Amino acid sequence: MIDITTQESVRVVEGGVCAPLGFSASSMSCGIRASGRKDLALIAADEDCTVAAVFTQNLVVAAPVIVSREAVADGLGRAVIINSGNANAATGEAGLAASRATVDALAAALGCESGRVVVSSTGVIGVPLPVEKIVDATPALVAGLERSIAASSSAAEAIMTTDLFPKEVAVEVDIAGAAVRIGAIAKGSGMIAPNMATMLAVVTTDAALSADAADAALRAAVGVSLNRVTVDSDTSTNDMCAMLANGAAGGLELNGADLATFTEALTDVLIALARSVARDGEGATKLVSVTVSGAATEDDAATVAKTIAESPLVKTALFGKDANWGRVAAAAGRSGVAFDQGDLAIDFLGIPVCRNGTAVPFSEEEALARFGSDEVTIDVDLGVGDEQATVWTCDFSYDYVRINGDYRT
Amino acid sequence: MIDITTQESVRVVEGGVCAPLGFSASSMSCGIRASGRKDLALIAADEDCTVAAVFTQNLVVAAPVIVSREAVADGLGRAVIINSGNANAATGEAGLAASRATVDALAAALGCESGRVVVSSTGVIGVPLPVEKIVDATPALVAGLERSIAASSSAAEAIMTTDLFPKEVAVEVDIAGAAVRIGAIAKGSGMIAPNMATMLAVVTTDAALSADAADAALRAAVGVSLNRVTVDSDTSTNDMCAMLANGAAGGLELNGADLATFTEALTDVLIALARSVARDGEGATKLVSVTVSGAATEDDAATVAKTIAESPLVKTALFGKDANWGRVAAAAGRSGVAFDQGDLAIDFLGIPVCRNGTAVPFSEEEALARFGSDEVTIDVDLGVGDEQATVWTCDFSYDYVRINGDYRT
Repeated sequence: MIDITTQESVRVVEGGVCAPLGFSASSMSCGIRASGRKDLALIAADEDCTVAAVFTQNLVVAAPVIVSREAVADGLGRAVIINSGNANAATGEAGLAASRATVDALAAALGCESGRVVVSSTGVIGVPLPVEKIVDATPALVAGLERSIAASSSAAEAIMTTDLFPKEVAVEVDIAGAAVRIGAIAKGSGMIAPNMATMLAVVTTDAALSADAADAALRAAVGVSLNRVTVDSDTSTNDMCAMLANGAAGGLELNGADLATFTEALTDVLIALARSVARDGEGATKLVSVTVSGAATEDDAATVAKTIAESPLVKTALFGKDANWGRVAAAAGRSGVAFDQGDLAIDFLGIPVCRNGTAVPFSEEEALARFGSDEVTIDVDLGVGDEQATVWTCDFSYDYVRINGDYRT
Repeated sequence: MIDITTQESVRVVEGGVCAPLGFSASSMSCGIRASGRKDLALIAADEDCTVAAVFTQNLVVAAPVIVSREAVADGLGRAVIINSGNANAATGEAGLAASRATVDALAAALGCESGRVVVSSTGVIGVPLPVEKIVDATPALVAGLERSIAASSSAAEAIMTTDLFPKEVAVEVDIAGAAVRIGAIAKGSGMIAPNMATMLAVVTTDAALSADAADAALRAAVGVSLNRVTVDSDTSTNDMCAMLANGAAGGLELNGADLATFTEALTDVLIALARSVARDGEGATKLVSVTVSGAATEDDAATVAKTIAESPLVKTALFGKDANWGRVAAAAGRSGVAFDQGDLAIDFLGIPVCRNGTAVPFSEEEALARFGSDEVTIDVDLGVGDEQATVWTCDFSYDYVRINGDYRT
């Protein structure tokens, strides 16, 4: 279900987070979820290595985000442990203690320092985390670590909430004489009663990266991928993307042009995950790509694209297979970005529908036919400058309302 | 269907825009709407008087907005003409000419200057306005002017789109020895295929106001009423609130404390309309009032309240009768306004659910019972300062998706 478009030099490979050398994964059910579904995942490097991470920009953050921010500050990491079924958010001091206990137990089982462990949680908010279940499970979780295609897929499944399919991808690219691999798993915007959407991603790579290089590459790649996905404009208290880099592929620490090549491949990987998260948005029937060009700055382009992608009127029109470009123009106009409406151009599904801010006659039949594809494109040219940005989203369907409104009944 | 809470000194009266002395209204079907529904409304003062107006802040604006901005610049007005069924937006130079032709025809029929006429349109976008139908109708429209309860109600009906009920209200207040009346009609967020929501309001008053006083009073009142309604975060290309003030109640031009008294009564009127627009939001099953207090500034409070009120996750939870305060906290946290999550307090339907950023146990049964009332309150205290603001919205239901996604099928 992951569609990845890569540069010619980048090869798609199997194995997800286990594709790079020196990484293994494990997952199990530790009893947080009453259903018995898997609720605990571990991704670990064989040895301490470089770590980088980006976290939610929400002011309200869950306990594991606070603990993990501290853990990655020194750039050294060993493992990422994720539980589903409970977000450990709005849980006060007890929640912080629970995240620290999780980290301590895993570090003891792995034989590493507590500061090497990144912890993440997703699920119900405001309910105490049953941390003893996690602590008791850590020896078995570590014992279950293996480097296999199945182990990565199982970990990808264990972190799912209302995701309809697991999300994993891996690529290989030749950099500085070594075949470097990058693998990743993610979960998308799923709702866990009575909680909020959470987007989590874990990346592994056997490239050799300094802490600064890893941080720079991750921030650059996330900025144009995971940060450009919007399902319903609500950022979570728990969002996180963490990357472990162990250098097992051999070769020197990447910098300059080599680091740029790595960053491009990492961007391909994260865009593939971003698109799959949008495609699997709650109730989604369509993947929607909104590209805004002709902007003065890339930030301007992203702001306009995001305003369009988050408009409930645009999203319900897409569900209704309606090439309703008037709603696109209105969303652009309220985005806060300056442009002249007389210069505005809009294509819907590749069909010119607006030029110079004025309607262009088009075939409704042709538009309806093009809605039959599973990806809808909206292209907007502001006519101001030369910068552009793409944002991915999905449509708003009856199922979105059902999933987020009716789940208690 | 209009619930108005006024100060003790303000009395609710009948007659809408015809309640103040010296104003009349007229409405008819001129043939823009194929259904034969009324599609043309006129609200007129007997003589030229003071006018003030506020318009959409969307960069993309419809032709009538451009023409009306020019008309009100000199502070003198006579009448407001509104057509439904066609927004005259994205119609280029021809659209501008159509709005000017509408104004010229009405001015000729009324015997006033063209610069005294405010024009507004709501309906389908990107389709040429059949302006000849409006021009041909203006003599009959003017001939039909009368000052009556029925004339105001009919005008309120003629500007409806997907509104389920007409919106009109009038009050009387004693100011400076005179019984001053303020009347108003409005239409809410309704969708006209393939167009966007439009909020229009027309206010009449027989208070004596200078152009500057009228402008100041209107901006102050709209700022805490119509500008604090959000159905789906999409502002329209056509939004407008215009006020005609003719001084027919007698008395001197209002200023100082008298102007403040008038502004308070006007605010009562516009809050009543704002609440009715939110209550009648597309697919709405509940009126939702979000009040944020403890903010450093009123703008901060309004920003947080609006972010909560526009969150699809919050709105679908309300449809599902779920006191999902975690989504409220997450929306507050991404609003861009600074606060300490450890100070956050949230009440849902009057029930404390969060204190110091941490869950407070509450009775789900009690919350479900309180959802039975037709108004849901969410109260958030940021614990930063002493300012507050209220925003009105509605829930997100299956019908919202149906109305905005399915109307073509």
